[in-house]
Amino acid sequence: MTPKRRPTHPRASVAATVNLILLEPGQVVNRRAVLGGVQAAHVRSVLRSTPGSTVRIGVIDGPFGIGTVRDLNDDGVVLDCALESDAPNRPRVDVLLALPRPKVLRRLWAQLAALGVGHIALTNAARVERHYFDAHVLEGHVYRPLLLEGLQQARDTRLPTVSIHRQLKVHVEDELGPIGEGVRILGDPGATHSVATAIAAAGPGRVLVAIGPEGGWTDFERRLLEGHGFSGVSLGPRTLRTDTATIALLSLVHSSLPT
Amino acid sequence: MTPKRRPTHPRASVAATVNLILLEPGQVVNRRAVLGGVQAAHVRSVLRSTPGSTVRIGVIDGPFGIGTVRDLNDDGVVLDCALESDAPNRPRVDVLLALPRPKVLRRLWAQLAALGVGHIALTNAARVERHYFDAHVLEGHVYRPLLLEGLQQARDTRLPTVSIHRQLKVHVEDELGPIGEGVRILGDPGATHSVATAIAAAGPGRVLVAIGPEGGWTDFERRLLEGHGFSGVSLGPRTLRTDTATIALLSLVHSSLPT
Repeated sequence: MTPKRRPTHPRASVAATVNLILLEPGQVVNRRAVLGGVQAAHVRSVLRSTPGSTVRIGVIDGPFGIGTVRDLNDDGVVLDCALESDAPNRPRVDVLLALPRPKVLRRLWAQLAALGVGHIALTNAARVERHYFDAHVLEGHVYRPLLLEGLQQARDTRLPTVSIHRQLKVHVEDELGPIGEGVRILGDPGATHSVATAIAAAGPGRVLVAIGPEGGWTDFERRLLEGHGFSGVSLGPRTLRTDTATIALLSLVHSSLPT
Repeated sequence: MTPKRRPTHPRASVAATVNLILLEPGQVVNRRAVLGGVQAAHVRSVLRSTPGSTVRIGVIDGPFGIGTVRDLNDDGVVLDCALESDAPNRPRVDVLLALPRPKVLRRLWAQLAALGVGHIALTNAARVERHYFDAHVLEGHVYRPLLLEGLQQARDTRLPTVSIHRQLKVHVEDELGPIGEGVRILGDPGATHSVATAIAAAGPGRVLVAIGPEGGWTDFERRLLEGHGFSGVSLGPRTLRTDTATIALLSLVHSSLPT
């Protein structure tokens, strides 16, 4: 099962591949699942499966497995599902992301899920424009398929949870809670610590990565975050766009975590 | 001079910021430069400069400097330019990138320049579609402004050079030349070496990073690259989209290089 290209449809991000077919938890009944729509088309037209073929499957927030094609016709594809006993671990990394402009966020959803995050908290900040909060791309029916696309690309079943916060101060002061054994970092051009150093200093807890808006956090916001345990890490001398910085920072965090 | 948002215009990528105003080499005459168009608008409307204000400038492939606004009106902005004596070093990293689909490449240009690359070689591969080579986004007048946008974001003056290769085999066998003191890496899900390990083993030479097409290199292509000094590095267990993988890999390489 080498990665195959997904058939283009209007809402798909560019260049997504399906390396795993994700099923809804209720879609597997008595070890059998029926695929319709895009998933059935993928099995028929991209994987070119025939009865007896196997495909890599996963249940959203559940285990991986292997699906054996039992029947396939224009109405759908019937799979016999052999699932592992345990779900994979949830990624140990969460993000606190100043709400990007809608066009950027639309592109980020799948990439965040593919890179591996447990929770995505989207927050207001001084340099976030208010109308960003009205965007369709903040609605679950829009972003959930994009997150699933990222999981199917990266072969994971753990759907990131999402929360939206209109007040950064309230979220940081009242909702984040204690760090515990984890670590909190924020990208800071003036910092001397590397991501690896910050991660190495952490216990076995979760890593929370804060990413500011285009134009950066204000001094007040930075002090607020630092006052709640976020330490600056350097991404090098180059100033990156928010979406590039997000991918860079998450890659560095994942590469620094013990596997 | 905190980063400011650039005024939106049709060809701009989303969320680009100008942290440095890049001038053409011939634009500075007798330590004086005249800005027009988008650059003048940026100084007037975003930086809100007045006579006597200073702005951070750079000459393409030349030194950084400080521009002092001497005059500013609807026709343009006149700067007195104090330039450093030396240009910054060219980034030590080059990429060999299987030509992505045009929409993806359009987004990558600025990000590649912002992350820092010396040379971008775009190449054919078995899983690259032929019509990608006909795309406008491969024309210099399209990609040069996007590269400059990335440099202005990242505060660099070194414009990446670009070459386009219709035959991977010819490029790798006849054009790449010897590794010398450098290192060549390619992302490989099966690899055990990390990027940091591969970079640590390198001399003071350049780092060449190969990034395959969506769907990956074929076995033949992988053997060809390995036969010419490319060693596999692991990006972790998650399969990433080409554009995400490109940013992740370049971030890891830069963070592993001595500064």
